[in-house]
This record gives sequence, structure tokens and C-alpha cells, in this order.
Amino acid sequence: MDKITQAHSVTAHIPSFTKIVGKENIFTDEESLHQYAHDETENLHYPPEIVLKPKTSEEVSAILKICHANKIPVTPRGAGTGLSGGALPQLGGVVIAAERMNQIHFIDEKNFQVTVEPGVITEVLQNAVKEKGLFYPPDPSSRGSCFIGGNIAENSGGPKAVKYGVVRDYVLNLEMVLPTGEIIWTGANVLKNSTGYNLTQLVVGSEGTLGFVTKIVLKLIPLPKYDLLMLVPFHNLEQAGEAVATICKAGFTPSGLELMEIESLKIVSEMIDDNIIPVTKETAAHLIIEVDGNNKEVLLQEMEAIGELLTQYEIGEIYFAEDATQKERLWKLRRRVAEAVKLKGYTIEEDTVVPRAALPDLIKGVKALGEKYDFAVVCYGHAGDGNLHIRIKKEGVPNSYEHPEMTKALREMFVLVKNLGGTISGEHGIGLIQKPYMDIVFKEVNLQIMQKIKKAFDPNNILNAGKIFDQ
Amino acid sequence: MDKITQAHSVTAHIPSFTKIVGKENIFTDEESLHQYAHDETENLHYPPEIVLKPKTSEEVSAILKICHANKIPVTPRGAGTGLSGGALPQLGGVVIAAERMNQIHFIDEKNFQVTVEPGVITEVLQNAVKEKGLFYPPDPSSRGSCFIGGNIAENSGGPKAVKYGVVRDYVLNLEMVLPTGEIIWTGANVLKNSTGYNLTQLVVGSEGTLGFVTKIVLKLIPLPKYDLLMLVPFHNLEQAGEAVATICKAGFTPSGLELMEIESLKIVSEMIDDNIIPVTKETAAHLIIEVDGNNKEVLLQEMEAIGELLTQYEIGEIYFAEDATQKERLWKLRRRVAEAVKLKGYTIEEDTVVPRAALPDLIKGVKALGEKYDFAVVCYGHAGDGNLHIRIKKEGVPNSYEHPEMTKALREMFVLVKNLGGTISGEHGIGLIQKPYMDIVFKEVNLQIMQKIKKAFDPNNILNAGKIFDQ
Repeated sequence: MDKITQAHSVTAHIPSFTKIVGKENIFTDEESLHQYAHDETENLHYPPEIVLKPKTSEEVSAILKICHANKIPVTPRGAGTGLSGGALPQLGGVVIAAERMNQIHFIDEKNFQVTVEPGVITEVLQNAVKEKGLFYPPDPSSRGSCFIGGNIAENSGGPKAVKYGVVRDYVLNLEMVLPTGEIIWTGANVLKNSTGYNLTQLVVGSEGTLGFVTKIVLKLIPLPKYDLLMLVPFHNLEQAGEAVATICKAGFTPSGLELMEIESLKIVSEMIDDNIIPVTKETAAHLIIEVDGNNKEVLLQEMEAIGELLTQYEIGEIYFAEDATQKERLWKLRRRVAEAVKLKGYTIEEDTVVPRAALPDLIKGVKALGEKYDFAVVCYGHAGDGNLHIRIKKEGVPNSYEHPEMTKALREMFVLVKNLGGTISGEHGIGLIQKPYMDIVFKEVNLQIMQKIKKAFDPNNILNAGKIFDQ
Repeated sequence: MDKITQAHSVTAHIPSFTKIVGKENIFTDEESLHQYAHDETENLHYPPEIVLKPKTSEEVSAILKICHANKIPVTPRGAGTGLSGGALPQLGGVVIAAERMNQIHFIDEKNFQVTVEPGVITEVLQNAVKEKGLFYPPDPSSRGSCFIGGNIAENSGGPKAVKYGVVRDYVLNLEMVLPTGEIIWTGANVLKNSTGYNLTQLVVGSEGTLGFVTKIVLKLIPLPKYDLLMLVPFHNLEQAGEAVATICKAGFTPSGLELMEIESLKIVSEMIDDNIIPVTKETAAHLIIEVDGNNKEVLLQEMEAIGELLTQYEIGEIYFAEDATQKERLWKLRRRVAEAVKLKGYTIEEDTVVPRAALPDLIKGVKALGEKYDFAVVCYGHAGDGNLHIRIKKEGVPNSYEHPEMTKALREMFVLVKNLGGTISGEHGIGLIQKPYMDIVFKEVNLQIMQKIKKAFDPNNILNAGKIFDQ
């Protein structure tokens, strides 16, 4: 993708921007621009012309008014942990970074709500509400560094989604600055709302194209008292996929139901030098199964029943995590898989999602595509909700996303996903990377409606333009 | 509200409509037009010029193409149980009734999904999935007669929302016919989706203004094995409101947490001639508390603990429902309250929603408004999620919604709701009735964005125009 040159001059507005955020919060040096030129997506580098770090909604508003009037491209930025290029300023212009907007305003213990700014690290938020006996379940692997604002933009998920849902299920209300500079609230701080179009839900997952979110009101739930964790080694990858639907069909609702193909497990175990999970030569994949609740006895019974249920498959010895340390070690392995396989050259990451009973067919199909197009592939992910991360390594192809053979293979993969009743992205978003494949899952008229919605919010098309679809 | 005469002629298109749906599915007789002129909202009567009952998406598409080309107003219609006038053809024109689109296409037991048409009665759907051990929790009081399509339009709730959420939490994907006649799917049949703007969630609760929904894919969950029900009589209405937050704060998540002011209970008990709930002269309100789950012992412990917790308030003797018959009698009382109080002259129904800890303030404020403006008021509703139905009786005022003193009182009430962090409608929608008060909870720019979204879907503004906001 080439950088598209726009008819705008950012430098002319530096004095105005300085008045708004102060000199110390404007960055134009090479190093800063480099830092904001990439995220966790492979091989993308698009430096902005200037980085602004406002503190308040009013500052964001003042910046956007200038950019709107002068048609300057603006890219909202969280922590840069994204996997679809959504936070990259591929048109240059201004980056508005959320990092100084990092206050937890109010934990409302009576109503189980929290009001936060977009630059709060997800794990910091989780821990803050945990101290009050409350629970914010969405739990992306990058939780230790990602921002809640980015989670809103991409509608993130994580391992707990199988029981607790994704980010959008917890967003009650958003304060956002429109691309024109007006500040609005999208809804109200209530659990039920049938008052006009649901702008809140429209903005969640819109990848920063409709507005810059400045305050977020999240629903919380009571913190479950106990959780139990076990690992089940499968001799056969497809059977592991099948077992996922079997567990759910039997009436269990695990709080985690993760699949790890053995190759991914080996790679991450090696990287972090932890062999907590025994790997026998028969093992093809592991299911990580967590249950949580308020009654330990009941949870133990559930775990036993699930273990019993899985004896119908070819499995190895089930491994129970005995204490908090063991649980943490296991979850750490799972959380760092993406990083580990990327270091091993699996640079392309896809975020497919299908109805969960279609997982075995998806896995089989992806492996067949690997053979056909000669790439190595490892699978892992949130099997409980049919969300499979597919990591691809293609030797000798540096910028793999744009390699003609790779785009052909990816297109075939997404057609398979669509035919299985699924779609392109479960939790990473479309950004720049998945954009060429939107025609597979949407009619032209769907995309036209999205374009018109974009225009309703952003008549001059300044905010994160060129992401998700062409505007 | 006067009927606005449009520059359109419906009769000229009868031959075309006949070709599409067949002569037997076109209605222009007085009686039919009368039947589709009203819903369950007070005092509204707007007959259409013609009623069409198509069977397929393609028929709906063909009808909408004609209406789009000729700018004929179209009103989608479910079962007519709405409480905000959303299904009324106040501009005349065509009513498209969903009643022949009443098939349950497929219950996907592996993936916990069901695909239905909009004219399926909600209770029929609930029972069909229950037979497979699955659960569709949204449960409006009118479930025995309302259509699932109407539930989608209004984002309905019901008593189970406190634990299980509302309709929008269960909608995965929608097939809809756009006002221009194109047929689209809004998303995919998956539990997680970060693929483009969330048109699915935008359409849920949009009151039939963005498209005619022809197929609905709903998420289901495993059916809980047991439920327990108890009634707690309170000597003080505000304390009953307070107790709601207390129960949730203690970590309980009841599957029902309903409030009934004593007056409403008396009225409904009289109407259906069932005195199952004892009324002592100290009783000011009842809380109906239900818990559900798979372990009866645990549920019994929970009920006991909740009962214990409530002894801090002035309460009477707690009443446990002993068997399915008693439970059904109790829920029947609750479900028929709206009908009963309406027959007693409480014709205005409001559907306010606030953060649940604000319930006591809302109740106090509404009672004070009753004194100030000289109207009688009873409250009941889904207290667990802060959703309070307020029924008002104003003697000698026939069309109360439009009486100047009443609109003044209602405006004051909605301002109070807004100041408490709440909003106008929790589950009934805005329709025609609440439209004049949208300025209280939204800025002009919010409404402008909604208008532009409406235009993106419906450039000729034919579909349910004039509902929610002026277009």
C-alpha cells in the first residue's frame, strides 16, 4: 500500500495545536513518528506528520475542529497493539494518541458500572474493579499493554467471551468527539435502552472511524469467587475442535475454552522457557478449559463431568492446575502464543470466526490450503466461540500479506469461512489488512450503507479514512 | 396528531401488489383497515390504505421496490402489541403485515442458534427451542401474542433481562429488505464479529425504520434445569426500590427481580380473580424474586440468603412458590398488570429506565409529580435493571398523552429520569408517543446523525417515516 498524499498542510497548524495541548504534548521528531508508524501487524510502516497527546475531551474537540475545517487526516491511537493496522496513519496527517487520557473516573459500586478514559490499560481497569469485588470480563491477550479505547474500537474479545461475551456486551454509553468537533454522549448509563438508534453499539467495533471516544461507561458484574482450570491433550486436532461443540451441547458453559495446536504450544514453551504443559509424541492439540462460579464443589463436579465427557475422544492424561501459580503459568503460555509464533516467522495472523460446530471443517480446510499453497500454518484461539486464529508462515516471502499467491490463498480461506457460516474477523477488526476481502462477506449495498453512515458522522472523511472499506 | 396527506396513490398499484402477494393477501375493507389502525397504545387510530401480507423476502422486496419508486409510505407490522405507536400507519399508505411469515426455519442444536421469520409468536419460539433443551430468555409480558419481529424492532426486554439481557443480546444476524427493495444479511451467524460496522445492532431497536426484517438468527443458551420463585412484601415502596440494589450488590444475580406497587397488584388480582398473593394493610409493594440454575441445592441456599439479606427492611412474611402451578399463577399476575391497570383508567404508560440504585429517587419523584399535577400513578416493572413502568390516570382527560398539562408533567418526569442518569425508554421504544421528548436526552447533533443514518437506508423516507424522530 502506498502512502496517499493529501492536499493538506499540517505544519501550518502547529501554533494552533500548541495552544490546545501545550508544546510538551506535540511530537514531530523522527523517533516519535517512527513509534506511531506501526502496530503489531506485520510489515506496515506509515509515519504520521505529527503526534498530539491531548488530555481532555475539549482538547480533542478543538483539534478535530481544525482538522475538519482543513481536511487533515486524523488517526486515533490507543496502545498500538492492534493486529489489523487500524491505528496506522497511512495518509499521514495527525495522530491523536490516547495515552494521557488515562483516568478511571468512577467505579459505581451500587450500579456495577465504571467510567473510564480511553487510555487506561485494560488490565489496570480489570484490577481496579476487582478490588471492589467487581468483574470486567473481556480479556484480550494483550491486556497488560492494550488500552480500553482500542478494545472499544476493535470490539475485542479474549478467552472469557465464551461465557461472558465481548467488549460490546459491556459498553453502556460513550462520550465521543465527532470528526466535526462536537462532543456527544451516545446513550445513557442504563442496562436497557430502546431510545433511538443505538449509536453506542454502532461505534463499538467501528475502528475509530466514526469519532474519537473520550469516556467509556462499562457494565460490570459480580466477581465469581472461584475458578478451576484444566488441560486436555488430544491426539487429533479435528477431534479437539469437535469436542468444543460436545462440551457446550452437554449444557456446560466454561468461562474459557481455548484450543492450542501442539506446534504453537511448543514454540511458546520454548520462548518463555516453561515446560509446564507436558508434550507427548501423540499430542496434536490441547484444550484449555476453565470454569468459574461461586460454589467450588459444583465447579469440581462440572470439571469431572467434562473430563468424563471427553473420554469419547482420543485424549491423553488430563492435567489440573492446582493453584494460582500454575493457573497463571498456563494462561501466560496461552497469552503469549501470538508473540511467540510471530517470532518464529508465522507473520500472517488471521482472525476467522465460524459457528463453533464448524471448527473441525475450518481446521481441515485451512490445513489443505497450506498444502495447496505451500505454507506452514498453526491454529489456536477461542474455540468456545468458534474464533480461530490462523498463523501462516510462507518461506521467502517478506511482505506476505500482499504477495499475490498469499492473497489468493487468503481469499480462498475467507470464502471457506463464509461458506461455513462465518466471517473474516472475530475480534481483531478489518483495518487495512482484511479490507480487500470485505466483498466476500458483504454485498456492495452493505458497504454502500456503511460508507453513508461514515459520511453521516464524518462529512469531510478525515477520521481514520481508508480503514475497513474505501470511503 | 393529524394524518399527513402524502402525494401518493396506493390504489393505482393494487394490480401490481396483487401479482406479488395474490388477491387473498390484500386487504382494503373497512374492518381490516380498522384492525391495523391501532396497537396497544392509548387512543391512537391511523388506518392504512391497504394491508399486504407477503410470505417471502422476495415478495417484501417487490412491494418495497414499488413503494420506493412511488414514494408510498410503508409501515411494517408485527402483532400490534406495541406500546409506543411504532406500528401505526399515521401517514396512511401500505401496511406490510408479518403474520404469514411465521416459520421457524431451523433450530441448530450444535451451535445453539435458531433461524426464524418475523411473524413467529415469541412464546411459540420459546417453547420450540425449550423442547430441544435450549433457552431463549427475552420474555416480554405480551409473549403469548407478540411477534419476534416486533421484539427486534423495539429491542424488547422482560423480566429475565436482569440476568440474561435483552433481545439485542441474542440477535446474531438479520436478513432484511431495505426500503429500496434490496435484500441483505446484516452480519454472520457467529458469536463474535468485528467485521465492519455493526448493522445488526443498529437495526435492533430501530423500530422498523431501516428495513423490513425477514429472517432472524438468534443465539440460544442451555436451558437452566431449575428455578425458584419468592415474593417479598414491603411496607414501604422506596425501600423495595432500595432492596433491589442491595440484592445485586451482595453478589446475587436473580433471573427475575420485579417490583409491583400494591395498587397494581390489587387491580390485577381483582381482574383475573386470583388472590394468590396475600395483601395486608401494611404492604406497599412486592418484590418478585426468581433464581435459576442447574443445582437446586445451591438455588435454595441463594434464596435463603437473599431472604436473610432483606430482613434489614420492613417486610412482611416471605412467600415461596411451591410448585409449577403456583409459579405460573404468580407470573401470570405480573404479566397481566399492564392490561389490568389500563382497564382501570391508567392509560398513559411510560417505560423509564435509570441506573438501578436510582430507583428510590425515581419513585419518589414520580409520586411528587402526581401530587403536583393531580394524577394517580402506579409503578411496576423490571426493577433489577432499573426499568420502571409508570402508569398514569388523569381523570377527565380523554387523550391524555396530548393534554397540555400532561405533556408538561411528562416532560418534567423525563427530565428527572435524565438527571438520574437514565433515559426515556427501556424496552417499549419511542414510536410516536415519546418522540416529543427526545430533545431531553439527546443533543440536536445526535438526532441529526440518526436522521442521516435513516437516509442512508431509506433515501425516499418511505419506511415507518415519522417514528422516533422527524425525518
